[in-house]
Amino acid sequence: MKVITSLGDFPAARGALTSPVGFVPTMGYLHEGHLSLARMARESCAAVIASIFVNPTQFAPTEDLAAYPRDLDRDLELLEAEGVDLVLAPSDNGALYPPGYDTWVDVAGLTHRLEGASRPTHFRGVATVVAKLFNIVQPQHAYFGQKDAQQALVIRRLIRDLNFPIALHLGPTIREADGLAMSSRNAYLTPEQRGAAPILRRCLDHVERLYAEGERDGDVLRRAMGEILDAEPLALPDYISVADLESLEEIASVTGKALVSLAVRVGKTRLIDNTILPPGSGLF
Amino acid sequence: MKVITSLGDFPAARGALTSPVGFVPTMGYLHEGHLSLARMARESCAAVIASIFVNPTQFAPTEDLAAYPRDLDRDLELLEAEGVDLVLAPSDNGALYPPGYDTWVDVAGLTHRLEGASRPTHFRGVATVVAKLFNIVQPQHAYFGQKDAQQALVIRRLIRDLNFPIALHLGPTIREADGLAMSSRNAYLTPEQRGAAPILRRCLDHVERLYAEGERDGDVLRRAMGEILDAEPLALPDYISVADLESLEEIASVTGKALVSLAVRVGKTRLIDNTILPPGSGLF
Repeated sequence: MKVITSLGDFPAARGALTSPVGFVPTMGYLHEGHLSLARMARESCAAVIASIFVNPTQFAPTEDLAAYPRDLDRDLELLEAEGVDLVLAPSDNGALYPPGYDTWVDVAGLTHRLEGASRPTHFRGVATVVAKLFNIVQPQHAYFGQKDAQQALVIRRLIRDLNFPIALHLGPTIREADGLAMSSRNAYLTPEQRGAAPILRRCLDHVERLYAEGERDGDVLRRAMGEILDAEPLALPDYISVADLESLEEIASVTGKALVSLAVRVGKTRLIDNTILPPGSGLF
Repeated sequence: MKVITSLGDFPAARGALTSPVGFVPTMGYLHEGHLSLARMARESCAAVIASIFVNPTQFAPTEDLAAYPRDLDRDLELLEAEGVDLVLAPSDNGALYPPGYDTWVDVAGLTHRLEGASRPTHFRGVATVVAKLFNIVQPQHAYFGQKDAQQALVIRRLIRDLNFPIALHLGPTIREADGLAMSSRNAYLTPEQRGAAPILRRCLDHVERLYAEGERDGDVLRRAMGEILDAEPLALPDYISVADLESLEEIASVTGKALVSLAVRVGKTRLIDNTILPPGSGLF
């Protein structure tokens, strides 16, 4: 496995790989979710590239950029074990965002709701860095996780709208034994908070159960999640949503596919999770 | 020469070409300026692709999208004569901008001044369609004309900031015998207006002369152009600028390279032209 830390060295390493190339962009501090994506890429591509870059432009000034967990040595070991061929891990933020940088990609249609409502500049940063990385890495396939469902929808729109010749693949949310969705941010949780954190999955389980019993009313489903969260003093809801899968607008009654998602603060840590209705449906 | 009018047919035609590929994006109604770019590409690339697409998103609702001159048959003859290999001429705007399209590329640093001040959404449309065309065409080299100097600076920034693996080449402004910069929009001019139109080049000539005589004061140079335009009743200045070549800010005194540019309405037709100081300097 080749590791490139300087952008200038990347094209030569990329040029040595055989197509089709699969790409797994990450912010590092890898968990089983990331690794499952690398495995998906490995199974269907001639070469696999991963990137490790804590992208500053997707964090608001008030957010956890400085605290975001990092462990490059461990990440590289994990990627090597998955058979990744090439890792881009820029050692210098300035290489991707030189002084005066002011060029942005805005997937306006999908980014004002849910995560975008709570984090107004988040998806502009995500879409911009992903466009940059796509142009640098030049993959034929790209892999994202369903845990960040809105991000996956934004990337799908980005690829379609800007005509990137890239096939997008979605990996399922990978969970801890107690249902907590794996996230690099879980590392922030104290033991007590960690004990409370599976409540997000319990909310989604409950909605799936209500749906299976015939409940279709959006307000009833949202309220049911709210009540579960209210009973947990460590959990402070940010949003609770049952939304149309295309527009991400809140829906009054579930008729087609719906994205059930929530963001919850547990202490200072903001956790997100989601499921698709009918249960077992894919996001795409 | 292969002509593709449906986006879906393009990748196969593109895949049949040998690299390096040179790309000349146009809005059609081709003149010697466009053709000189095709010739530049032909000289240094294994294959040449041109696009013909009157991009609606770079026109404001009040502008001349509907009136913009079109002559596809003539354009294709001209491109064939230049040895172009492949032309992308989408017959349907909807293919590039499907209903609900709302994804934009914004080169914010350079687009608020000069053309951007007069045409606030123009460069967002330009940057977006160029990003889309770059992703579709996948060229190694791209060719733009100096007549649209700010556009060339925006594209240079777009390529650098979004890490497109594309080398940008600039062709000189091609002029009619009387100095008028070639433009598809010259077709709008009545004979009387056409007679007045070389006044833009006369302004630039005068500034170059003053510069050669030692004049460096930005206000003096701008005023000199304004006085020439004031004497022509058919010419209504939109902007008159002597700007820093990096920031495009108006400069008090010309010390390094400067972009001297102006936009002038002659009747309903908006004409632009520019030169670089010191005379003979390149834009890049």
